[in-house]
Amino acid sequence: MPSVDVPVALLGYGTVGAAVDRLLSEQADEIERATGHRLRVVRALVRDAGKERAFAPAPGVLTSDPSEVFDDPSIELVAEVMGGLDPAGPYVLSLLEAGRSVVTANKQLVARRGAELFAAAAASGAQLRFEASVCAAIPVIKALRESLVVTNVHRVLGIVNGTTNFILSAMGEGRSYAEALAEAQQLGYAEADPADDVGGHDAAAKIAILATVAFGSRVPLEWVEVTGIEEVRREHVEAAHALELRVKLLARATLADDRVDVRVGPALVDRHHPLATVEGAFNAVMLQGDAIREITLEGPGAGGIETASAVVADLVSIVGTSGTGFLQGDPVWRELERMPPGELASPWYLRLRVEDRAGVLAQLAQELAAEGVSVARLVQQPVDGDAVLHVVTHEAPAGRVEAALASIRGLPESRGEASALPVVSDRGIEELGWA
Amino acid sequence: MPSVDVPVALLGYGTVGAAVDRLLSEQADEIERATGHRLRVVRALVRDAGKERAFAPAPGVLTSDPSEVFDDPSIELVAEVMGGLDPAGPYVLSLLEAGRSVVTANKQLVARRGAELFAAAAASGAQLRFEASVCAAIPVIKALRESLVVTNVHRVLGIVNGTTNFILSAMGEGRSYAEALAEAQQLGYAEADPADDVGGHDAAAKIAILATVAFGSRVPLEWVEVTGIEEVRREHVEAAHALELRVKLLARATLADDRVDVRVGPALVDRHHPLATVEGAFNAVMLQGDAIREITLEGPGAGGIETASAVVADLVSIVGTSGTGFLQGDPVWRELERMPPGELASPWYLRLRVEDRAGVLAQLAQELAAEGVSVARLVQQPVDGDAVLHVVTHEAPAGRVEAALASIRGLPESRGEASALPVVSDRGIEELGWA
Repeated sequence: MPSVDVPVALLGYGTVGAAVDRLLSEQADEIERATGHRLRVVRALVRDAGKERAFAPAPGVLTSDPSEVFDDPSIELVAEVMGGLDPAGPYVLSLLEAGRSVVTANKQLVARRGAELFAAAAASGAQLRFEASVCAAIPVIKALRESLVVTNVHRVLGIVNGTTNFILSAMGEGRSYAEALAEAQQLGYAEADPADDVGGHDAAAKIAILATVAFGSRVPLEWVEVTGIEEVRREHVEAAHALELRVKLLARATLADDRVDVRVGPALVDRHHPLATVEGAFNAVMLQGDAIREITLEGPGAGGIETASAVVADLVSIVGTSGTGFLQGDPVWRELERMPPGELASPWYLRLRVEDRAGVLAQLAQELAAEGVSVARLVQQPVDGDAVLHVVTHEAPAGRVEAALASIRGLPESRGEASALPVVSDRGIEELGWA
Repeated sequence: MPSVDVPVALLGYGTVGAAVDRLLSEQADEIERATGHRLRVVRALVRDAGKERAFAPAPGVLTSDPSEVFDDPSIELVAEVMGGLDPAGPYVLSLLEAGRSVVTANKQLVARRGAELFAAAAASGAQLRFEASVCAAIPVIKALRESLVVTNVHRVLGIVNGTTNFILSAMGEGRSYAEALAEAQQLGYAEADPADDVGGHDAAAKIAILATVAFGSRVPLEWVEVTGIEEVRREHVEAAHALELRVKLLARATLADDRVDVRVGPALVDRHHPLATVEGAFNAVMLQGDAIREITLEGPGAGGIETASAVVADLVSIVGTSGTGFLQGDPVWRELERMPPGELASPWYLRLRVEDRAGVLAQLAQELAAEGVSVARLVQQPVDGDAVLHVVTHEAPAGRVEAALASIRGLPESRGEASALPVVSDRGIEELGWA
């Protein structure tokens, strides 16, 4: 980037693209102070260049002709803010192959084709940056790649979906799932079809990206074990509160013995844990590593201007590192195996509903013991003539707990309900006062 | 930095210096993957080169002769991990003047001489990085300078001293100040002479640095209004809990109308605020700005390896941006004025002890009203024959509250106690349910 004036092209000019254009122009002085360069949007590729825009770009910037971006050799820096896999994927790939650096806000693209794009960038010496694809302006990718470069991060724990966190927070204040979802939709936090959020799929894409970057190995989206929050009921939230826990949709990536586990699902978080108090539509990510113990970053995980701010920071960082070789190697440098999903161990909260008669408790205890699941705490409660049992276990592998639950569901005394949620705490079960 | 092998010199080889040496050598592959370079400690300036070291550097590395660092033209990158103002200050200044980039972990040096050092670096084209000088491995300086480059940060709120946070957390669990301090000393969180920590001076240096970087204007240490935690008593902590607040030693920097306020002191933090749940010896910093609303970074704020990890990240970032002009301008680019300390407004919690007799309440209310301090909530409590009043006010300037307290202390009915703590919340007094 020898010139003081750095031309930038945008792919897409929706809410985020317009905000990037506005930030680059309004904050040009700040950027010049930081980099010595002025970044200016010279071209924005859109489907309809004639459409009216909320923030009007400079005349001649909008174009619907890809060649005006791809065949212009003066454009070395491109921000992809169009979303979707096609044509965004082929566009980004061809730019990187041509040695042009790209910033993308597209989590589906990075989660599904990241490894291929990283390799293309490394081969041509271009950079691919993607801070905005995970948790908007929260600088978690930068922290992982630049600040924690020597810390061997082995665990990533995140609340990375604002919609579900809003819903679970509202349920913590007494609303039902349906009421909380309706409120989220009314406030614009949830879409009319909320399946991508409440089903955990949005969070799955984000944790796949975070795990890939944190562990330096490709973590395919298919590896992520996903459970949504649709089955979380007020009773779970209330039971959690009674145990001084909070229900959160946690995205977790774990590296142990050179194997990777990635999952998204409801979990019970110790109220003293930094993630327990992340409320409403906020996001937070905790990074655990050798030298740093843990760093938690929290903030708004979505929003047009927040996302644009992350895109601009990435553009600035590319200009600021151009030609040095920094972050121009392939972040995917090793091939780790997937841990079989049943092996990840944690303490568990079990909720079991059974017939209320003599001998049932012994039978349940036996089914758990048969799978090596050890009970730390048990509370029995009469509910409509049945017995509901709240069980907290010591650490046990997910697969053993699932197997025990399957056996329990098969008992003639079972009333159908036998569910498990992992418990996440930095403190042991004993310290939590449950043993 | 054209060569693959980058020689690094250390000034000092204590706990942090040895850990930097160890991280650079043990994590050389990670660093090479990120930068294309191997960083190697070739010289470490110490007072006594013959002293036994816990981590032994390579033979010939230790030297007590400054010329072996300063006169060696192959050394372009230096980490200052010796601490203190002298000779660290002259050393760092002369290195920067000579165009060598410096990483420092020295908060006193940056807080007291930062502006001068920044100017020297900008003049010669060298870089000065200082992540480790504030909150160890928490990447708050990097976030401010690189991720939030276009966000106009106008407020920094931090828990930046682990010792005091540990003490206040312990008091929240029922210990007295003396007991909590003794426990902190026993665990190694507090020094035998804890004055620098409990008096707020350590936090003052850190907030002066954060304010300088966040606002781009020199914020001298003398501007920081400092109150320690020595006067915090169990009654304050209990009263806070009753109001669903937590007592924290908050470092605050505010930019309003081009004027800067910086202060350190005990404050009551809404328990829903991200800083309320920062417990034990942890640190956290919240950055509020235009485009990002707020980002909070939390983690261990001290420790040899954590500090070293930040030093290494800075060394890596210098190598990764060398020659691009990135962050090589003077971060102090404007001259903001100091806001008169009495002007900063917030809601307040007042604790007043007076004679328990008719007419006193009216008199107190009158003294507050005379200074324009408006009461949102008042609870009166009999204590040993006196009346203790817990008052929460609407937003009022610090100076008016101080003046009202001075008048109240002068009343014949006063029992001496009339103290005020600011209330920090993202929610209004009404939302908090106090009005």
